[in-house]
Amino acid sequence: MEKYIFGMDIGGTTIKLGMFREDGELLKKWEIPTRTMDGGVLVLPDAAASIKEEMEKRGISAEQIQGIGIGVPGPVDREGIVHCCVNLGWGEFNILERMRELFPEVSNVKAGNDATVATLGELCSGGGTGHRSAAMLTLGTGVGGGIAVESAIVFGFHGGAGEWGHMVMNPAEEDVCRCGKHGCLEQYSSATGMVRVAKKFLKESGEPSKLRGQENITARLICDLAKEGDRLAEEILEECCDYLGRAMSYISCTVDPEIFLIGGGVSRAGAVLLDRVRRNYQKYAFHVTRETPVKGAELGNDAGIYGCMKMVQSR
Amino acid sequence: MEKYIFGMDIGGTTIKLGMFREDGELLKKWEIPTRTMDGGVLVLPDAAASIKEEMEKRGISAEQIQGIGIGVPGPVDREGIVHCCVNLGWGEFNILERMRELFPEVSNVKAGNDATVATLGELCSGGGTGHRSAAMLTLGTGVGGGIAVESAIVFGFHGGAGEWGHMVMNPAEEDVCRCGKHGCLEQYSSATGMVRVAKKFLKESGEPSKLRGQENITARLICDLAKEGDRLAEEILEECCDYLGRAMSYISCTVDPEIFLIGGGVSRAGAVLLDRVRRNYQKYAFHVTRETPVKGAELGNDAGIYGCMKMVQSR
Repeated sequence: MEKYIFGMDIGGTTIKLGMFREDGELLKKWEIPTRTMDGGVLVLPDAAASIKEEMEKRGISAEQIQGIGIGVPGPVDREGIVHCCVNLGWGEFNILERMRELFPEVSNVKAGNDATVATLGELCSGGGTGHRSAAMLTLGTGVGGGIAVESAIVFGFHGGAGEWGHMVMNPAEEDVCRCGKHGCLEQYSSATGMVRVAKKFLKESGEPSKLRGQENITARLICDLAKEGDRLAEEILEECCDYLGRAMSYISCTVDPEIFLIGGGVSRAGAVLLDRVRRNYQKYAFHVTRETPVKGAELGNDAGIYGCMKMVQSR
Repeated sequence: MEKYIFGMDIGGTTIKLGMFREDGELLKKWEIPTRTMDGGVLVLPDAAASIKEEMEKRGISAEQIQGIGIGVPGPVDREGIVHCCVNLGWGEFNILERMRELFPEVSNVKAGNDATVATLGELCSGGGTGHRSAAMLTLGTGVGGGIAVESAIVFGFHGGAGEWGHMVMNPAEEDVCRCGKHGCLEQYSSATGMVRVAKKFLKESGEPSKLRGQENITARLICDLAKEGDRLAEEILEECCDYLGRAMSYISCTVDPEIFLIGGGVSRAGAVLLDRVRRNYQKYAFHVTRETPVKGAELGNDAGIYGCMKMVQSR
């Protein structure tokens, strides 16, 4: 009997679904919109219905499901307790119990924080392939990510492992982070944070730059202009990468991963970003960890579903 | 046949030895001086000879050794490669292979960084008993420590996990750390660092204090005077604990341990230190990890040999 693994990577806008063979080969991936009304009660049933529809189409029975992995946009602890997912309207509940109601025949259901699950995907099937441990930093609205060690995820006791975005890098920062603290990493090094830093530089410096007068400054634009040699864009990017490199040195002092992976849309900028991150990391890193490789993530939006699959495969 | 576990906690001045029953009960502990001449070639043979002497006295045969655990004052990787122990004069070599020559009959030999091994000891038999994971910060000449998760040590790829002392907390610091960087945690929050901070405060502030005119300022004295309500001593201690609390928030953002343990001689100061560390940690911690307990370590100098024993017991 053929067996299948399903992955559900739940985001605030879409749910990414993946169907894998038992051995980890991706057979199909698709997306459905995330309906967040009514405290997000529809999210899991919608995803379940979409998986069941696909199963019916292919004539797959419930017994053929090896397991289901779920990536959740918020902290999830080892027992499956979701503490709060602002983007979905979710409060505290046990996601594994809820899934048991939707798939009573499936005993192997695993859930983890989406960024951490994506890290596992990248470690096992993406940029980290061949390595035993990886720390990923995903630069998006915030700075997410996680740690994976030997095909397992590091959850942390409260599900708080990999919350790099809220490392307080600069307690003297005037602006408030959305978490209420001052000077968090994501105020400098997320896609949004880079734009914030850019606006500050534009205001405080008289230097000419193609960034001036732009209506829509994005992290991508900053990277592109830095690549072209725009001095101010280079300085802005350097500042953002300095914070990121220092935060990565903290990660090394704590768990010393075998490789760092930089993910998120911004990472597609490539060498102009990665070379700077690497150089700044080395500036701060403790000597034994100075040469830890810093690479771009490779799976993009598929990292989540691959990680979901891997969670099911491992133990 | 009764079986025994031996622990060797190697320091720059003494080697602490422990003899345990198979079930983990400590039967005897003793110390021998560390002879560091000639690149430290005598260190392991001296410890081995002392263990063999004890065995002979008690009529214990080599087959009765369940295993030997070793704590080393420097980074050790998973394969047993010691990268460099300045205090012992050691360069790079495989400590497990060397031990095999000294104890050919013993197959179960484990080695780890001394501070990390002590963390395991505290987690399993000391201040962390009953918890699944702990991060320990040991305040001594530097800030050492480690992470233990479910009776296993987190080594890190290069053996660099738990090197908190070299987190760069303040890149703007003028003084150089012994590692060559500027603003490392141990420049503020180690026993030595606290004295450095005190001298700076004494120079820069006109505030009266019992610290003024003291020939031998120690971290302990700073804590004692802060307890007595000496304002300047309180400000100094607050500064040191602010750095320490922020570093701990980085650890939580990375691995989110179940409990923090503060060790080293300074930690004996008790509440005057621990309350400040806790308050400052909470100031910086990401909300889900805000209530992580901060406790004093309990085993003192015995934490190392207990951790050695535990390394042997686990797997």
